[in-house]
Amino acid sequence: MSIELIPLPGLPSIVPGDDLVAMLADAIEQSAGGAHADDVVVVCQKIVSKAEGRIVKLADVEPREEAIRFAETYEKDPAVVELALAESIEVLRMVDGHLITATGPGFICANSGLDRSNQHGEGQATLLPLDSDASAERLRAGLAKRLTPTPAIVVSDTFGRPWRMGQLDVAIGAAGLAVLDDHEGSTDWAGRTLEHTLIAVADQLAAAAGLLMGKADGVPAVVVRGFSYTPAGGRAAELVRPKDQDMFR
Amino acid sequence: MSIELIPLPGLPSIVPGDDLVAMLADAIEQSAGGAHADDVVVVCQKIVSKAEGRIVKLADVEPREEAIRFAETYEKDPAVVELALAESIEVLRMVDGHLITATGPGFICANSGLDRSNQHGEGQATLLPLDSDASAERLRAGLAKRLTPTPAIVVSDTFGRPWRMGQLDVAIGAAGLAVLDDHEGSTDWAGRTLEHTLIAVADQLAAAAGLLMGKADGVPAVVVRGFSYTPAGGRAAELVRPKDQDMFR
Repeated sequence: MSIELIPLPGLPSIVPGDDLVAMLADAIEQSAGGAHADDVVVVCQKIVSKAEGRIVKLADVEPREEAIRFAETYEKDPAVVELALAESIEVLRMVDGHLITATGPGFICANSGLDRSNQHGEGQATLLPLDSDASAERLRAGLAKRLTPTPAIVVSDTFGRPWRMGQLDVAIGAAGLAVLDDHEGSTDWAGRTLEHTLIAVADQLAAAAGLLMGKADGVPAVVVRGFSYTPAGGRAAELVRPKDQDMFR
Repeated sequence: MSIELIPLPGLPSIVPGDDLVAMLADAIEQSAGGAHADDVVVVCQKIVSKAEGRIVKLADVEPREEAIRFAETYEKDPAVVELALAESIEVLRMVDGHLITATGPGFICANSGLDRSNQHGEGQATLLPLDSDASAERLRAGLAKRLTPTPAIVVSDTFGRPWRMGQLDVAIGAAGLAVLDDHEGSTDWAGRTLEHTLIAVADQLAAAAGLLMGKADGVPAVVVRGFSYTPAGGRAAELVRPKDQDMFR
């Protein structure tokens, strides 16, 4: 069975307070012929954040001393550094102009996932949703009133990573599906019993959708159709590796 | 434009010396209606390794002292530890039963990407291809004689990663496409000029194919159809972050 990745273009420019559920439901009806069984809707973080009003005017930010020093040394915007620090629950690296932090339930990324935007005039920043799993759950509950069957939701963002060049879309929010698929004890196609394989399904879905999202393509959401996910109350927070199990922080 | 992920099931169990090109070409003709423009064929490492004879009998391995000690302490197979060390170009962590190494051109993963297999009797291990980019190039050159247009190739493997739970398929070999897509200077859908976004396209493709490969599903290869990749002589080795640019090793 093939899987189809269906772009949902034409979502209007989102502003705070917009009814993202209605916009997504309309787009799914128009571009994907409504919802099918096994649909997962991957929504990029930026439109979720904007609809939720997670936008800050950089001119309104009062940077702390540490942010000013770091910004001056590395030619950064002190307001951006301040916001990244304020959004973080831990600073992993603040060196050579790089600011790598843990944010939300522990997602590790550059600048706490902050996105600079000039969409509504100069000097704004979009912050990650306060709780992307809750955002995904709200979107799913909203879509349930418009679409049958109800799709699962993944909220994605584009993160860098250690060891490998380039950025990749990962899941920062999820609703309606198991985010990790445990293959422990199953057998592979050679009849061998698998020792233990835990697949990051929600990240696979985010990366697949990323093929269509490309930052410049005007596709802020994608329907993944035909992937038989495990229905469950999974949360992207489960994808955060506990600190004491991480050898590379 | 949608993207389609088409599984290539029914590839027979691969043994050393098998003509993987012919098997893939047959499967693409049977399951995907031949090659289309913009096709990328993602092939899992294991069948590439097997066709290339990268299989070792564990009973034939003579473990070094260090491997024996580590194996005894953590109840591992000393032959597996020996092979992982022998295949590595650097050991990043060898602690608490975890052996994280760099292998090939610098891909970082557990046990140098070694896969235990009992397919042909007890106690064998499959090693990564000696040069997965060369493997991808050979597959592409072979498919060029059978299929028009010639698909691009990604060789994928399932790796763990820092910071996040669960494993994800990544590219360890590539041919015919740019593995990194540089969005520097382009504008996004809000009309904002992007500062610098380097997308790991080959890893997106590997992760997308992973949705169908699932270790237990008998799908060792997937055609990704409809993704407009950049034709180029890209190599997965470009996805290795240079050590001096990596803050998390």
